Amino acid sequence: MKKRLSVVLILALFVSTLVFASPNKDLGGPGGSAFTGKAKYIFVFIGDGTSITQRTAAELYLANKNNPQDLKIAVDRASGKFPAGNGVTDFTPSIQRMLMSGFPGQGFSSTYSSNSLITDSSSSATAIATGNKTRDGVVGMDPTATIPYTSMAKMAKAKGMKVGIVTTVSLDHATPASFYASSPSRNNYYAIASQIPSTNFDYFAGGGFLAKGTKENQTKDIADVLKEGGYQVYNTRADFDKLKSGDSKVVVSNPRLDWQYALPYSIDMTPDDITFAQFVSKGIEVLDNPNGFFMMAECGKVDWSCHANDAVASILDVLTLDEGVKAAYDFYQKHPTETLIVVTGDHETGGMTLGFAGTHYDTFLSRLHAQKISYDAFDNTVLFDFFEKNPNAVFDDILPIVEQYFGLKRYTKAEMDDMNAAAKNGDAESFAKLGLALQDYEIADLQSAFNVQPKDPNPTKRQQQLAELRQDPAFDIAYGSYSPFTLALTHTLNQKAGISWTSFSHTGLPTPVSVIGVGADLFNGYYDNTDIFKKVVRIGGL
Amino acid sequence: MKKRLSVVLILALFVSTLVFASPNKDLGGPGGSAFTGKAKYIFVFIGDGTSITQRTAAELYLANKNNPQDLKIAVDRASGKFPAGNGVTDFTPSIQRMLMSGFPGQGFSSTYSSNSLITDSSSSATAIATGNKTRDGVVGMDPTATIPYTSMAKMAKAKGMKVGIVTTVSLDHATPASFYASSPSRNNYYAIASQIPSTNFDYFAGGGFLAKGTKENQTKDIADVLKEGGYQVYNTRADFDKLKSGDSKVVVSNPRLDWQYALPYSIDMTPDDITFAQFVSKGIEVLDNPNGFFMMAECGKVDWSCHANDAVASILDVLTLDEGVKAAYDFYQKHPTETLIVVTGDHETGGMTLGFAGTHYDTFLSRLHAQKISYDAFDNTVLFDFFEKNPNAVFDDILPIVEQYFGLKRYTKAEMDDMNAAAKNGDAESFAKLGLALQDYEIADLQSAFNVQPKDPNPTKRQQQLAELRQDPAFDIAYGSYSPFTLALTHTLNQKAGISWTSFSHTGLPTPVSVIGVGADLFNGYYDNTDIFKKVVRIGGL
Repeated sequence: MKKRLSVVLILALFVSTLVFASPNKDLGGPGGSAFTGKAKYIFVFIGDGTSITQRTAAELYLANKNNPQDLKIAVDRASGKFPAGNGVTDFTPSIQRMLMSGFPGQGFSSTYSSNSLITDSSSSATAIATGNKTRDGVVGMDPTATIPYTSMAKMAKAKGMKVGIVTTVSLDHATPASFYASSPSRNNYYAIASQIPSTNFDYFAGGGFLAKGTKENQTKDIADVLKEGGYQVYNTRADFDKLKSGDSKVVVSNPRLDWQYALPYSIDMTPDDITFAQFVSKGIEVLDNPNGFFMMAECGKVDWSCHANDAVASILDVLTLDEGVKAAYDFYQKHPTETLIVVTGDHETGGMTLGFAGTHYDTFLSRLHAQKISYDAFDNTVLFDFFEKNPNAVFDDILPIVEQYFGLKRYTKAEMDDMNAAAKNGDAESFAKLGLALQDYEIADLQSAFNVQPKDPNPTKRQQQLAELRQDPAFDIAYGSYSPFTLALTHTLNQKAGISWTSFSHTGLPTPVSVIGVGADLFNGYYDNTDIFKKVVRIGGL
Repeated sequence: MKKRLSVVLILALFVSTLVFASPNKDLGGPGGSAFTGKAKYIFVFIGDGTSITQRTAAELYLANKNNPQDLKIAVDRASGKFPAGNGVTDFTPSIQRMLMSGFPGQGFSSTYSSNSLITDSSSSATAIATGNKTRDGVVGMDPTATIPYTSMAKMAKAKGMKVGIVTTVSLDHATPASFYASSPSRNNYYAIASQIPSTNFDYFAGGGFLAKGTKENQTKDIADVLKEGGYQVYNTRADFDKLKSGDSKVVVSNPRLDWQYALPYSIDMTPDDITFAQFVSKGIEVLDNPNGFFMMAECGKVDWSCHANDAVASILDVLTLDEGVKAAYDFYQKHPTETLIVVTGDHETGGMTLGFAGTHYDTFLSRLHAQKISYDAFDNTVLFDFFEKNPNAVFDDILPIVEQYFGLKRYTKAEMDDMNAAAKNGDAESFAKLGLALQDYEIADLQSAFNVQPKDPNPTKRQQQLAELRQDPAFDIAYGSYSPFTLALTHTLNQKAGISWTSFSHTGLPTPVSVIGVGADLFNGYYDNTDIFKKVVRIGGL
């Protein structure tokens, strides 16, 4: 009996050694099935429109920045050295992953809504926040839009945890809304934002309120509704800086918001702007308390830039998401056995692909650096200023602006011939220039877009013109609801880099889920977006 | 002391209970890091060109087949009931995953080659088979194409295991080749196939040999090289059926091969053809022995159909891959503690997306059922027969064939108006018809493709014509190296279903890795394709 006990003891010790020798010390058990822990600090990051394609684009962009291999390949190929020669430097050491990609828990979630294989952001955020499928357009309610669901954030609050909601878009947008409100329609911004006081959540931060632009806001400003509900409402850097541990019931927005009450795109940010990572870090400072906290932090404009097929804006915002995750990871390192960080996306947007028919097996991501501004800032601060000042402009008039903001340039045939000859002799500078030189078919595309571009300085009139033009399916497929000329510019530059798009809407791809901390390996596998709620609730003991 | 020991014992027993209570009983340890087991039976399935998009497309196709929700949505929308109404049935219960998607190990692998962010099949297969990055085009050698690498298959053979190589394409194609041969170029088919005798591998099965079409084959038929090397070479159903346990050194091909010495596409198969699953099952029967076995089984034409942007052929071949996996899974169920099944892809192909600008947030996958034949069979058995018989055919002449094989039909304006009116009243049949009715812009696209379509009955002459036409970048982007008319047909049907494409080449997306059996959870996470080799070698003790 004693001997058998010793054997059991040794065996058990051996197994326990295996468990504790695991790099994931904080995991509840193998396969996660026997998990019994509890996370005191919970972060749920959502990259809106951020699926595997967007994440990989950001990582390939980093890899290329570390080693602009594409230029070398191009020169090698033009000079005839490739593929026979070995002049191509090894790409492998330049590969750089984002922080989230190295997390020990890596899974995938399906994204369909109750009524469509392609979800929208309200139904997917409702799935993640409440564990229930619903119909597209509905926020935090059942598909009949009559029964409200309870979100993980509200469950955390009920357990005595502090709660924060961070986003780079407006705080009444579908994704943040699904964590604190319920509404038959995601477009009821005022009704959504008005639910903030009843949540008693502690920290709302990032963008402003689309409710500002609604009729209801004319009766009583949404900021006043929040103030009357006991919230402090701030929108200056000084007020943001002053926020500290123990503060509660605050709503803080970046001083500069775009026309949709969102933070600027990362590419358009200035040092005056408060970054996503700063909003997350400040949230940690405000929320940290002995009863723990829950924070949902959305990087929302990856989605918007992908709707508009702007790869550069999208890539830089994915990297911004990773910086926000880094802020949470710094906290995790101090509390590794009590913290859970989940990073996911709600769906793919734009049908982004990391390849293009015209570039075959190559990518030329260095070419993306030529873009200096987001499509949206180009539209709103450059393009329509130009049309206002030059109402009778023809295509040639706009080419200097095209070069200034997107690096795309039209050359004469003689100039092209010279550059081609130099590139064939291995001249890297000529090759870089050729990479941004407009080809005849690209000029034709830009010219067509210029011709149909609504040029009215009044945005409402332009929108009306676009709505009429979209009645033609061919126009709708080519430009969706976007400025044709701006879209033709991002399409042209993206395609030259080897990135292309198929849609202005979401697509049906699953999204990655990257997790570190308590119970991280529960998130390995391929599951549904409603399972993210179930796993978080289980790990948080909510 | 005694008390402390008891505490340790109880703790250790508790932990060991957790380990053994796990549903993945055969796993070596939590997180896999302490894995010490050994797989006696190893399967490596490769879906060529099969990334998350291709797999999800197949699963959404199944979901839609279970519940053709798209027709209901369409009727609801047309009749004005959507999105206000609740007439849309819940999609959720119809979701159907493939067998591989339910495996306990689910990871992702990056795919870049040593010289490009977008890999080709030889460099990616070399990475998986040998654990080393190499240059595109090189098979089983280093980037200088001078030093051969050793594949996991050869390591298994050296350990005394039997080895099988199965593929739906030719046996000297890049993917299978990387598991048994080394060559500076994937195009050296004869040199590659000639290496079979020296491997002493036991079972080569599926397609034939592209070596047949080489000059070298004129001197000595590749089949004779194999026979002189001690192999039995079969290509009849009767010979296939006769193969049995203990047979060795056999090469067996499907009796019917396409012009590239590959099996027909699943959509074109007849009951006379030997299926991928049958080749796998027979392989298990032939290879099973007390020393264990290794089998690489490639479903290769997912890639080819995606190069050609044919979603239907691709989806049905992904389902064929899953059927092959099922054959291995049946064996796994009898040997769950000794078997490892790894299913992965080598890269994405085509820039496939599960959405399209023209269908916005909708998919209409029921429309795919209208396609009766692969793009390749259409080209080779329909289109050029038509041109041979009708050398002066105009666009209208070909429309009956278009309807017969792709369901796409041109209606008069009056007919369209009638169907639209009926659909608005909720008539499902009219809506289904409208879904395949050619719109004006689609007719224009088909007409353009028809106009530039090389129509010469001689395939070599057509290829020459295409090569000349491709000098125009706009043509190259629109049609690549494919028959413009056939491509326009698959594009049109795919887009009507809500699926679209951006390339005729591979793209840079990572690929899923789905695993069951010994050490499956070692495959959770996000890693490189060379890590697949390392994990298999470790689990197999190779």
